[in-house]
Amino acid sequence: MSSLLISGGTVVSATGTARQDVLVEGERVAALLEPGSALAEAIRTGSAVPDRVIDATGRYVIPGGVDAHTHMEMPFGGTFACDTFETGTRAAAWGGTTTIIDFVVQAHGQRVQDQLALWHEKAGGNCAVDYAFHQIIGDVDDESLKAMSELIGEGVTSFKLFMAYPGVFLSDDGQIVRAMQTAADNGGLIMMHAENGSAIDVLVRQALAEGRTTPLHHGLTRPWQTEQEATHRAIMLADLTGAPLYVVHVSARQALARIAEARDAGQNVFGETCPQYLYLSLEDQLGARGEQWGDFEGAKWVCSTPLRSRAEGHQDELWRYLRTGDVTAVSTDHCPFCMKDQKERGIGDFSRIPNGIGSVEHRMDLLFQGVRDGRLSVARWVDVCCTAPARMFGLYGRKGVITPGADADIVIYDPDGHTSIGIGPGRSHHMNMDHSAWEGFEIDGHVDIVLSRGTVIRDETGYVGSRSHGRFVPRGLSQNLI
Amino acid sequence: MSSLLISGGTVVSATGTARQDVLVEGERVAALLEPGSALAEAIRTGSAVPDRVIDATGRYVIPGGVDAHTHMEMPFGGTFACDTFETGTRAAAWGGTTTIIDFVVQAHGQRVQDQLALWHEKAGGNCAVDYAFHQIIGDVDDESLKAMSELIGEGVTSFKLFMAYPGVFLSDDGQIVRAMQTAADNGGLIMMHAENGSAIDVLVRQALAEGRTTPLHHGLTRPWQTEQEATHRAIMLADLTGAPLYVVHVSARQALARIAEARDAGQNVFGETCPQYLYLSLEDQLGARGEQWGDFEGAKWVCSTPLRSRAEGHQDELWRYLRTGDVTAVSTDHCPFCMKDQKERGIGDFSRIPNGIGSVEHRMDLLFQGVRDGRLSVARWVDVCCTAPARMFGLYGRKGVITPGADADIVIYDPDGHTSIGIGPGRSHHMNMDHSAWEGFEIDGHVDIVLSRGTVIRDETGYVGSRSHGRFVPRGLSQNLI
Amino acid sequence: MSSLLISGGTVVSATGTARQDVLVEGERVAALLEPGSALAEAIRTGSAVPDRVIDATGRYVIPGGVDAHTHMEMPFGGTFACDTFETGTRAAAWGGTTTIIDFVVQAHGQRVQDQLALWHEKAGGNCAVDYAFHQIIGDVDDESLKAMSELIGEGVTSFKLFMAYPGVFLSDDGQIVRAMQTAADNGGLIMMHAENGSAIDVLVRQALAEGRTTPLHHGLTRPWQTEQEATHRAIMLADLTGAPLYVVHVSARQALARIAEARDAGQNVFGETCPQYLYLSLEDQLGARGEQWGDFEGAKWVCSTPLRSRAEGHQDELWRYLRTGDVTAVSTDHCPFCMKDQKERGIGDFSRIPNGIGSVEHRMDLLFQGVRDGRLSVARWVDVCCTAPARMFGLYGRKGVITPGADADIVIYDPDGHTSIGIGPGRSHHMNMDHSAWEGFEIDGHVDIVLSRGTVIRDETGYVGSRSHGRFVPRGLSQNLI
Amino acid sequence: MSSLLISGGTVVSATGTARQDVLVEGERVAALLEPGSALAEAIRTGSAVPDRVIDATGRYVIPGGVDAHTHMEMPFGGTFACDTFETGTRAAAWGGTTTIIDFVVQAHGQRVQDQLALWHEKAGGNCAVDYAFHQIIGDVDDESLKAMSELIGEGVTSFKLFMAYPGVFLSDDGQIVRAMQTAADNGGLIMMHAENGSAIDVLVRQALAEGRTTPLHHGLTRPWQTEQEATHRAIMLADLTGAPLYVVHVSARQALARIAEARDAGQNVFGETCPQYLYLSLEDQLGARGEQWGDFEGAKWVCSTPLRSRAEGHQDELWRYLRTGDVTAVSTDHCPFCMKDQKERGIGDFSRIPNGIGSVEHRMDLLFQGVRDGRLSVARWVDVCCTAPARMFGLYGRKGVITPGADADIVIYDPDGHTSIGIGPGRSHHMNMDHSAWEGFEIDGHVDIVLSRGTVIRDETGYVGSRSHGRFVPRGLSQNLI
Repeated sequence: MSSLLISGGTVVSATGTARQDVLVEGERVAALLEPGSALAEAIRTGSAVPDRVIDATGRYVIPGGVDAHTHMEMPFGGTFACDTFETGTRAAAWGGTTTIIDFVVQAHGQRVQDQLALWHEKAGGNCAVDYAFHQIIGDVDDESLKAMSELIGEGVTSFKLFMAYPGVFLSDDGQIVRAMQTAADNGGLIMMHAENGSAIDVLVRQALAEGRTTPLHHGLTRPWQTEQEATHRAIMLADLTGAPLYVVHVSARQALARIAEARDAGQNVFGETCPQYLYLSLEDQLGARGEQWGDFEGAKWVCSTPLRSRAEGHQDELWRYLRTGDVTAVSTDHCPFCMKDQKERGIGDFSRIPNGIGSVEHRMDLLFQGVRDGRLSVARWVDVCCTAPARMFGLYGRKGVITPGADADIVIYDPDGHTSIGIGPGRSHHMNMDHSAWEGFEIDGHVDIVLSRGTVIRDETGYVGSRSHGRFVPRGLSQNLI
Repeated sequence: MSSLLISGGTVVSATGTARQDVLVEGERVAALLEPGSALAEAIRTGSAVPDRVIDATGRYVIPGGVDAHTHMEMPFGGTFACDTFETGTRAAAWGGTTTIIDFVVQAHGQRVQDQLALWHEKAGGNCAVDYAFHQIIGDVDDESLKAMSELIGEGVTSFKLFMAYPGVFLSDDGQIVRAMQTAADNGGLIMMHAENGSAIDVLVRQALAEGRTTPLHHGLTRPWQTEQEATHRAIMLADLTGAPLYVVHVSARQALARIAEARDAGQNVFGETCPQYLYLSLEDQLGARGEQWGDFEGAKWVCSTPLRSRAEGHQDELWRYLRTGDVTAVSTDHCPFCMKDQKERGIGDFSRIPNGIGSVEHRMDLLFQGVRDGRLSVARWVDVCCTAPARMFGLYGRKGVITPGADADIVIYDPDGHTSIGIGPGRSHHMNMDHSAWEGFEIDGHVDIVLSRGTVIRDETGYVGSRSHGRFVPRGLSQNLI
Repeated sequence: MSSLLISGGTVVSATGTARQDVLVEGERVAALLEPGSALAEAIRTGSAVPDRVIDATGRYVIPGGVDAHTHMEMPFGGTFACDTFETGTRAAAWGGTTTIIDFVVQAHGQRVQDQLALWHEKAGGNCAVDYAFHQIIGDVDDESLKAMSELIGEGVTSFKLFMAYPGVFLSDDGQIVRAMQTAADNGGLIMMHAENGSAIDVLVRQALAEGRTTPLHHGLTRPWQTEQEATHRAIMLADLTGAPLYVVHVSARQALARIAEARDAGQNVFGETCPQYLYLSLEDQLGARGEQWGDFEGAKWVCSTPLRSRAEGHQDELWRYLRTGDVTAVSTDHCPFCMKDQKERGIGDFSRIPNGIGSVEHRMDLLFQGVRDGRLSVARWVDVCCTAPARMFGLYGRKGVITPGADADIVIYDPDGHTSIGIGPGRSHHMNMDHSAWEGFEIDGHVDIVLSRGTVIRDETGYVGSRSHGRFVPRGLSQNLI
Repeated sequence: MSSLLISGGTVVSATGTARQDVLVEGERVAALLEPGSALAEAIRTGSAVPDRVIDATGRYVIPGGVDAHTHMEMPFGGTFACDTFETGTRAAAWGGTTTIIDFVVQAHGQRVQDQLALWHEKAGGNCAVDYAFHQIIGDVDDESLKAMSELIGEGVTSFKLFMAYPGVFLSDDGQIVRAMQTAADNGGLIMMHAENGSAIDVLVRQALAEGRTTPLHHGLTRPWQTEQEATHRAIMLADLTGAPLYVVHVSARQALARIAEARDAGQNVFGETCPQYLYLSLEDQLGARGEQWGDFEGAKWVCSTPLRSRAEGHQDELWRYLRTGDVTAVSTDHCPFCMKDQKERGIGDFSRIPNGIGSVEHRMDLLFQGVRDGRLSVARWVDVCCTAPARMFGLYGRKGVITPGADADIVIYDPDGHTSIGIGPGRSHHMNMDHSAWEGFEIDGHVDIVLSRGTVIRDETGYVGSRSHGRFVPRGLSQNLI
């Protein structure tokens, strides 16, 4: 079994930092060592010399990122999200994310197990990094409820419901109650897309009828009240049934206030946010950032929940909730669509714009910028990007932490490096997109080296992995309940 | 340098558990190892064989406890707390606590540096485990404010003020503002005894004048409003000045609600509670638990803040706040007084009963019982007893965590063991007290082995340490600010 | 025009009490007079002697009660509420209520105007006291939205929606948004039955499937979370649309907490409760109060929202919210069904029990008992029973107040009288029911005399009115917006 | 006894409006009459013709204003507030205020009864309108506590304490507890000046030491935290003792949030604000409004609590709390000092500027402007300026309401009139001041006629009253407890 020593770096965990060496044997972390200890010296000089040594001096050694919310190749209104498992996980590798949890989609009329098999087929043999699955339950009935319990045994332990998208994914409150009762019983975790789809649909139809058709109106027809309302409703139904609840992609500060309130009361309620809600705003959709697509450029930032108004203060409060712990994890909701042929379907009718932003490559960088800006400690950065999502979704011990026995998913991050994001000159990204939602963002840091299960998949020369490397990771129950 | 391997156990950190071996070299942790890895095998079998191996199979391997609130030999009304540094730290060792932070007392008219020197003298050469100091500032003036900044450089980085005890320790609000301004400036941490002493004194005088003199009236004359009020006042003054604030020994659920509210708003406010507030209640002081001292038996549980009414629900809410994170740490406020000649001074006048309960030996056990009772996870147990107090008070990296480079302060805890607390037949404690506030408590767990800086100071035979072992640990600034 | 002087009494308004004489001319209050003033003396002795004088010495002179929530002859599951307009308004007269606002029912597939015409037909010429109408919109569509605006001009200015009863009355959230937008535009008031019907239906079906079929399970399958959730949802949708909102028959303290929160934030949100939620409890449905119908006796108290658990403290908090103003008005939700042939339909299946309690006769008495029990001031009694509902629903100036120009709807109430409610020996009620939900209630007060528009319709001998007396009262817009 | 008829106007009460005639006999309201009723006609045409008729057509007829917070001739730092009872009450009459409640001052070392006698002497025979007294207790001890109970019998039923001004008026928390216990026992009302004087004094000393000496720093050294803190402390001590609490001159929105919270919980806590906190701001003190006194012009608006920052949103929230009822009453805290020789003492040291603003003349107008601006209903205007303060302080029935038996204190207010406030050309005020804090304010309304106890003291020609008219009004206990 090959061995590798990462020496001289500063290992960062969710609770703090330490100067430590990391010994990797094969796919796993074999040891953490105090530099200068007799054992470390013996390894450096003696009989136990490792096969390879990486000098991490002056750099952070952190767990590989865990992105708990991606949608590779997701079908949406007759098209598909434009990153395949291959291109999307390769971009993840570029950006220091070594595990993704993707969503298997069950829509009305589909069988859960069939869909799970289909997703295994799509991902298997195509991933640069390890992957796991959540299951979307778009059709709550006796059969899908039964499937939920079966999936627990297959390592798919979290189930996403929708309060939006009537006629496609929306579960009514009675269905939500039934699914939550099932999760309360089998130990699964309910994930919720919390927007009041019924109210939103009225607002959307009214806007279109009145000729308000540009991308900006996507956000204006999904006002914060529709998110706060649905979030609160989900919390109450979770309280009623005893199910743990994880609210995905929270963007409204008022929704987070309800989550914080429930958490203070001891309820197992968790909030996720995404880089776009921390950095971008509704005002961006007015078109001021560029003229490439005219008024329609805002389509780049059409996602649901929508970007929120900076004037209303959402972004600063989200950073605060992230710092104080009421946002548990930062995921990307990576769901990329190109402008050409995809987003463009919505010219003249914002409701036809495929929803989604591509960020799987940039999450570690964008959040590190929060460290540089004084919004987060470096330990909290590792927590929200790596450790907390691993604990939340039953991966801790194997993922999300650098500790002996864990998978050697490790990133060497240079806090003095620099990254220029975008498709313009001097910039780069590696997602399969014809634009970047993050064009022009400058990061005061850089992903230097990435290991996945002991193998270097990115180094200073770029991506050096392979699509046959990543494996499916069955998950246990959540390790993060309070 | 001698080496020691702890093998086969389950290492518990603040974020989770793992089967790992721990290699100690000299005073520090040299490595964490995956059992079965080539390196671990090499150590077990090869050239790097350690001098000693402890088999921890089936047991938890946890960081030594950090008790951030003790009062050894504390002068109080003409007497002294009956545990010396020698007896008190020995009891701590028995119970798995390997670091205490004791309070240097400055009362009106005393010089801060003189008092610190006096405490160094009292503790030096007398401690079974390592120790650090907080500084009580009982007389805020230009000189003591200047001393605060000097003490930061001497490893004393936290400063306790009192809103109670007028004429002895009480700082008025103007003094509090000045001390907080100083801490905001020099990075120190303000600790606060938050009770409205002026209001309480009126209630106490009225009670005594009306013949309500038994120990029960100690609690009745310190109602929750006086604690909630002072807590809120401290929070507001901290907000005004920008100082971080740690409220000691919180016992009223309403006070914790204010702390939680401030934390949700992003303020650097922290709450500490103690085992007595989690387990014991005002109702206990009615005398129902025994007849040994008649009505006066309740004097055993006279402490400030006082025990709270179980009927009002404080205890359950404190456990909940501990679980959800708004209580940061559990300390003991160890301040023991014997009944004979000490507590007895208050027969006929509860206000003369020395305030304090002895618990330094039992904290790790009592909180583990919370794990057994389903109130905390085992990771949260380690967090509130070890890791969080170390981070709070600038000891993290050296104390509070088992990681290479840290001091080898390690406890091997048997979750299948049993501990019977008290002075009665078949029970034991090792504090210098003629009674136990915890008489009759049964713990479903047991401290088996305790290491302090690599030295076994307690094993299955009992205490095997020495009073010359413990050293003063200078502390850095808090590592726990949000 | 005949004249009548009520002399010697204590006139009570929503702000206080005064010794005043009341002069009635024809149907209206002509004057309030200071006893002993020259004018009062002139009336007593001179040329302006009134036709009749009622001596109210020692008694309260209060505005006739306004019951803003009744359901006379309401169709429900193939039967009708057992009080007709004739019997129901007669009972109201007995009890000091001189105005009712009844609900016109539009269910799915019915035309709003047809239904309003039908209700005019049912009530016209049959009422002992004046009456007005709210409109239930059970089918929100373009036509019914248009009808809402037309009804404003016909004196029907408030519109009730349902979040419960899927398939019968339930509006989905999109429909609620549309109705609220209409009300925000035309000045109407949205009234809401706030229970999550979709979630409740699941719980009901599960209970029945498991053999939990007795009346108690009516309440257990409508837990407080379903009411709090729907209340909050209604508040958010009102905030979104700008519509004023009046939540009917609130029974859960958690729902009132949300209403109070919205009111503190300045939103035009109002809560109504009913005597049953102040006095009765879920525990009553366990059957302890009698054996007449065996386990099924609890059917007497089956209503929606349901009675709440006394152990959870709802009743005391409702009284408090009533006192502090966050409950705006007390109505009865009078909707009586007999046990025989009606409630009995639900033997073996609680979901088939017609929902409703009869109280229209007892509201003034039951709330006065709150005065006697120290829960309300006498001024607040008059406010919540008379003045506030009149202001809320655009009747103030004509109803709800004793002031010159107002209709002479006046009650002379004896605070030293006594009323025994029920059907048992020595008790009485005058509603058309074979039982009383209030059997055995003793009231320390008595309705002595009742005037409706200047006519005595009840005196010490009993009911002396006629069914041709009451008239329809068109209402203006709410006068109670904050 | 002379009689007077006010006919044709719109009488406004705290609950609504009505077209009514008001008949005054001697000093009291004898009757309210429906215009056109037989009685009204008889009065107009027959034997009961009144001596005088005032035609109020097109105008509001409202109760005379009750200003519950004035400081005439108040001693302050060696000078006196520059309005005597004579000049101050005359200005009140000009502005439609017919009752003032002034504060008797007891400072340390003075006897309560001596001071009350002194105030009776100063006011007796010098007042244009009726007056009552609150008692300031500046020295809480056995004697002053005993005096509190005696004063209840003399019609002085409210007692003001200070948490500010150490060494002058400040009561420590123990003293506050004792005074509150006394009030809880005798039914009196505790009024509180809620600012943390001890913290403020430190900030003031620091500012002066650093050369920050201009009037602006008065406000900057009394930040909102010091008000919110003291308000909360007062609420908690009131909760502890059971005393009702009225917090005077609240200016910080955060303080009102605590008051609202306590009121929601059912505690008898009330908030007062003043026109200056609704209209003026800290930003005004920057000097932008004029150059007359250079930087020092801001001294005109030096008062305590201070004006608050408009950027922080206090003013809008105060209006909202006033509308929703958590501010109970609007008083002026009238305490005028001239710039010359008085305010000027503070040139170079803001702490020597006499605190106070003169507004007694303008309160009714300034709040009516709130009606015109859509912030309040006309009924709520009458409530907060007249009815609520009368109820709060035990005057209701005699003052604060137009109803038979009440004192005929009546204002005829022209909603179509106009008032220009100030000392500049075309402007006016009648307070004894060399400047106006309200210079340039334009009011869309006008006080036309003012009656005090049946006597016209102001008419279209101006002030027509006399200083011998006003009488002391003994007060009962509060009629406003919840």
